[in-house]
Amino acid sequence: MSLIVQKYGGTSVGSPDRIDRVADRIAATRGDGHDVVVVVSAMGKTTDDLIALAETVHSDPPKREMDMLLTAGERISMALCAMAVEKRGVEAVSFTGSQAGILTDAAHGSAKIIEITGTRVKEALAEGRVVIVGGMQGVDPARKEVTTMGRGGSDATAVALAAALGADACEIYTDVDGVYTADPRIVSDARKVDEISFEEMLEMTASGSGVLMSRAVEFGRRFNIPIHVRSSFSDTTGTWVKEDSMEQAVISGIAHDRSEAKVTIRSVPDRPGVAAAVFDPLAAAGINLDMIVQNISRDGTTDISFTAPISSIGEAEAISRSTARELGAEGVTVDRGVGKVSVVGAGMKSHPGVAAKVFSTLAEVDINIEMISTSTIRVSCVVDAARVDDAVKALHDAFELGDVPDQGEDQ
Amino acid sequence: MSLIVQKYGGTSVGSPDRIDRVADRIAATRGDGHDVVVVVSAMGKTTDDLIALAETVHSDPPKREMDMLLTAGERISMALCAMAVEKRGVEAVSFTGSQAGILTDAAHGSAKIIEITGTRVKEALAEGRVVIVGGMQGVDPARKEVTTMGRGGSDATAVALAAALGADACEIYTDVDGVYTADPRIVSDARKVDEISFEEMLEMTASGSGVLMSRAVEFGRRFNIPIHVRSSFSDTTGTWVKEDSMEQAVISGIAHDRSEAKVTIRSVPDRPGVAAAVFDPLAAAGINLDMIVQNISRDGTTDISFTAPISSIGEAEAISRSTARELGAEGVTVDRGVGKVSVVGAGMKSHPGVAAKVFSTLAEVDINIEMISTSTIRVSCVVDAARVDDAVKALHDAFELGDVPDQGEDQ
Repeated sequence: MSLIVQKYGGTSVGSPDRIDRVADRIAATRGDGHDVVVVVSAMGKTTDDLIALAETVHSDPPKREMDMLLTAGERISMALCAMAVEKRGVEAVSFTGSQAGILTDAAHGSAKIIEITGTRVKEALAEGRVVIVGGMQGVDPARKEVTTMGRGGSDATAVALAAALGADACEIYTDVDGVYTADPRIVSDARKVDEISFEEMLEMTASGSGVLMSRAVEFGRRFNIPIHVRSSFSDTTGTWVKEDSMEQAVISGIAHDRSEAKVTIRSVPDRPGVAAAVFDPLAAAGINLDMIVQNISRDGTTDISFTAPISSIGEAEAISRSTARELGAEGVTVDRGVGKVSVVGAGMKSHPGVAAKVFSTLAEVDINIEMISTSTIRVSCVVDAARVDDAVKALHDAFELGDVPDQGEDQ
Repeated sequence: MSLIVQKYGGTSVGSPDRIDRVADRIAATRGDGHDVVVVVSAMGKTTDDLIALAETVHSDPPKREMDMLLTAGERISMALCAMAVEKRGVEAVSFTGSQAGILTDAAHGSAKIIEITGTRVKEALAEGRVVIVGGMQGVDPARKEVTTMGRGGSDATAVALAAALGADACEIYTDVDGVYTADPRIVSDARKVDEISFEEMLEMTASGSGVLMSRAVEFGRRFNIPIHVRSSFSDTTGTWVKEDSMEQAVISGIAHDRSEAKVTIRSVPDRPGVAAAVFDPLAAAGINLDMIVQNISRDGTTDISFTAPISSIGEAEAISRSTARELGAEGVTVDRGVGKVSVVGAGMKSHPGVAAKVFSTLAEVDINIEMISTSTIRVSCVVDAARVDDAVKALHDAFELGDVPDQGEDQ
C-alpha cells in the first residue's frame, strides 16, 4: 500500500460543488487502497476577502493577527472537505498546520518550514483515516504562535508533508493540465510536457511559469519526492516533476514574465566597490532583484541595469537615484514596458549553441534584446513587452517544441 | 487597577464599522487604567452561514469537523478586533479558546467548561496587553481536539474567564440596554431593571428572556462575578446581575416564551410507575422538557401534560404515542398554539399571594390558564399563544412594574 499526498488549490475547492468533486477523487484514491493525505487551500477568493477586511480596520495590520485571521480560510475548507469525504463513507479528519506538526520559524506571513513531526497525521493514517491538512500554515513551536508561509505555501506544505511522511508521490491539483512547452494562450501548438526535472522546473518557475511554486519544487528536489502536476477537473495525466530521467529533451519549454520592470543607472564611474554601493541599499530595503547586468566600461564609466517586480520598482528607483547622486553617475532610467522570455532545458548543458540560436531567432523576427542572463540550463532575454508573445512563438517554433512528439537527442 | 472582562456578541462585531466602535470602547476602558480581557462572537450571521455551508456538503456533518469549521468564525472576529485595538495605539493579542486555556469536556457542539488555565492570558495582561479571546470555543485536553459550547457559549466563556482571572466585573455587551420588567415591544411602559439577583435572572432566562444565557448566569452565581448587561451602542448603564441586594423588589419582571408546544397523554391508568414510563423514553431521546403537570386522578385515570421546544415536538409526540399504546391510555393531544407567561421575583418568597394575584389578574382579562408551574421565586402559566401579549400587559400593570420607580416593600 502506498501513501499519496494530494494538494487542492483555492479554485479546486471554491464551492460546495467543487468540494464534492474533490471528495469523489479523494474517496476513489482511498478506494484504490492508498493511504491519502490531502492539503487544501482556502476556498476561492477567501484569502483576498480576509485581507481586504483586515485593511478596512487597520492599514498595516499586525502580522501575528494577520496570520490568525488568514488561517481561518483553510480551517473552513479543510473542515468542509473532511465532511464531504465522510459523506462518502470514508473516515476523514482535518488538522490545522499546528495539529499536523508543521513547525516553522517565527516569520509571520513568510514562515519557513523547519520540521514536520506529523504525529497526529501518522496516528490517523494508522487508524485508516484520510487526513485533510490546512495548507500554508504552521506553528512556531518556541512561541506557540500560528504562522503562515505566504504565496505558494500550500504547495510547499504538500511536498514537505510528502517528504516527512515518506509518501510515494505528491499530486498537485490545479486548474491547468500540467506544465506546457509555452503558454497555450500564446502558442496554439504548445504541448503538455510529460516529465520535467526539478532543476528545469525551478528555472521555469523563476522565469514566470505560475504552475508550481519554487518552494514546493525545492522541497521535491531536496527530498526526491516526485510531483505530479495535474488538473482537478479531469483525469488525464499531467506533468511529472522528478529527478533527471535518462533521456532528456534539449529544451523543455519557453517561459515568459511581464511582472518586472528594468532600472538602469547610467554612466557610473567604473571603480572597485561600485556594484556593492548600488546593490547593498537595495538588498537592505528587501527588494527582490531578478536579473543584474553590468556592461564593460566605456570612457571610464559603465551602465548597471537590473530588473525587479513592478510592485517594488518605485522604491528601487528612489534608492537608485540616491545612490547615483552619491556615485556621481549620469542618472537613472526606469522602463516599465519590458518582458522576459526564457528558454529552459537541462539538455543545453551538453548542447552548445542554444544561446546563439535564441539570439538569432529573435533577430530574425526583428526583436531587440535589451538584457541577457543565462544559467547552465536557461537563457533569458529582456525584450519590449509588446513583443513578448512574438518572441515566445518564434522560440517555440525554432526549437520545434510543438509538433515533435519526441524531440530526442538529435536537436 | 481592576480587571474587566467584556463580551461582544455577533451584532456588536457585525461589520468593520462596528468593530471600530467596539475597539474605541476597549481602548477607552484600557485608557481608564483597567486591565481588559475581551470575548467576541463570530461576526453577524457568520455562524449561520457556516452551518448552511456544511449542510450543503453533508446532511449530518460529523460534530468534530463542525467544531473545526465553526471556530473559524470567532477566529476572524478576534483577529480583526485585535487589529482594530492595535490601530488605536493599544497593544492587543488574540487567542483561540485553546490558546486561552479554556479546557472543556469532549462533547463537540455542546462542550462544558471544566477548567480555565489562562496562562497565556495572564502573561499577556502582565505585559500590558489587551487580550481578545474567541468565544464559545475550547479544547478537550485529553484528545487535543477543538470543541464548541453551543448556544450561549460566548456569554459562558466571558463569565467563566472573569471567574478564573478574578475579574472585578464582567460586562456583556448586547443590542439591548439591559433586562426589562417585560418585553418593551409588548409593554410600552416596561422599565429597565437596575439590579437583579442571579437567582431571578436564572428564572427569567428559563422563562424566555433572551438577554443572557443561563449558563453564563450560573457561572456568575457560582463564582459570584457581577455581570453588567448593557448596550454596545450606547454608554448608558445597563442591568447589574449580582448576588441578592438588601432591598428586593417583590417582582422583578414578566417573561414570556412562545418557543414551546404542549403534549398531553389523556386518560392514563393511574398506577405507580406511570410517570416513569412516560418520561424515561423522552429523556433517553434527549428531549428537553420544560413544564410537567399531572392532575389528580378521575375514574382511575389521569392526564399527563408536558411542554417541550417546538423543534423536538414531533419526536416527543411519536414517543408519547408509543408509550400511550403500551400503557393503555386514551390518546395523545399536541397543541402548538401555546405560550408561557412567567412572573419572577425573589421577593415573592416572603410575600404570599403572588400566585393568587397572577391567576386573578388573568381571569379578569378572560385568559384561560392551561397549565401552571411554580418555583419559590416564579409563577408560570401556559396560555393560548394568541393571548400572551395581553397576559404580559395585564400582569405588568397588576404588579405596577411600569410606573413605580421603586416598588419597595409595600406591594
